[in-house]
Amino acid sequence: MAELLRVQGYAATGLQQLARAAQAPIGSIYHHFRGGKREVAAAALRQAGAAYIQLLPLLLDQHADLPAAIEGAFAAAAEDIANTGWANMCPVGTVAAEIADTEPELRQVAAEVIASWVDEGTRYLAGRGLAQADARTGMYAVLSALEGGFLLARAQRTVEPLLAAGHAVSAYIATMPLWVPGVQGGGDASGGDVVHVAGDAHLRGEQG
Amino acid sequence: MAELLRVQGYAATGLQQLARAAQAPIGSIYHHFRGGKREVAAAALRQAGAAYIQLLPLLLDQHADLPAAIEGAFAAAAEDIANTGWANMCPVGTVAAEIADTEPELRQVAAEVIASWVDEGTRYLAGRGLAQADARTGMYAVLSALEGGFLLARAQRTVEPLLAAGHAVSAYIATMPLWVPGVQGGGDASGGDVVHVAGDAHLRGEQG
Repeated sequence: MAELLRVQGYAATGLQQLARAAQAPIGSIYHHFRGGKREVAAAALRQAGAAYIQLLPLLLDQHADLPAAIEGAFAAAAEDIANTGWANMCPVGTVAAEIADTEPELRQVAAEVIASWVDEGTRYLAGRGLAQADARTGMYAVLSALEGGFLLARAQRTVEPLLAAGHAVSAYIATMPLWVPGVQGGGDASGGDVVHVAGDAHLRGEQG
Repeated sequence: MAELLRVQGYAATGLQQLARAAQAPIGSIYHHFRGGKREVAAAALRQAGAAYIQLLPLLLDQHADLPAAIEGAFAAAAEDIANTGWANMCPVGTVAAEIADTEPELRQVAAEVIASWVDEGTRYLAGRGLAQADARTGMYAVLSALEGGFLLARAQRTVEPLLAAGHAVSAYIATMPLWVPGVQGGGDASGGDVVHVAGDAHLRGEQG
């Protein structure tokens, strides 16, 4: 269901199409979703939102260096969008933009999905060593860069905006003090140390 | 005309509405825009695009410090979007996302508008002291952060995503070496010097 919203948007997607995609008779859709198309779309956005946030640890756990991990995740997204012929990568973002002024209930669902991304992403980034406030600002920066990068890349049919956005947010994260557990020094009691995520490796390369 | 596209999007805006907004009889619209609604929308996107890029120097010339200027511009955008009741701030971005898969000619127009923003923005940032390649990556980072920040702020009805996006791109620009004309030193012949945009002032505050 999210796939149809991703490709066509909300206005252009009919309930019959949604029923066909779910291989369900339209009567059963009405039975399970008494709110009709709006309620089906809400369920699809919630489902897609829950699935997408699971990609965050999957993608970012691959690199020990957090800024490199973020730049790598944007490079992977850029490869995906080019390989799919510039498909819309995020139904939540696109539907949110389309219906923000016209469908208050769906806008509220999109807002809740985004809030859950911010909460889970903040927890993940804090687990990677960022201070709580930095982790939250960092997660909003990642999401803005990703949604804006998708929009520009789809319009221009080039990966350049996504790679630049990923590079920028990676460099931003690299300016944040990082808590490295187990490193001695710094004079605190718990045996960790606050360092800066230094090194220029992530500021170059990995954009291919 | 761009105003209608901004508020309603492309699909929901009729040619009669466009004619009313332009205070023109619909026959004269057809006379001047033989391509109908699609051609009117293309003209509106080009016009809005040309107007918007003029805001860049207007907003950024206000601060001698480039990262502070960028963070200030995002704060101004955040104030605008909150004051207008979370209006759609950019018809080019929204229409581009809506029609990317369905209206190839309009997508091409959006791509050209974005390319002109990148070119003009790159020129501006290079004029503020960034190296050419940094200026181009920086402009894409600004545009991604702005479009993504608008999308998230409209969906969530909070300025937090826009402020975080502006903070991140400002911190990113601050990592770039800056050419300061007229400063002696550095051993080059032209009397300028390459410095880093240092200082933490723009990394805190100015988010109010």
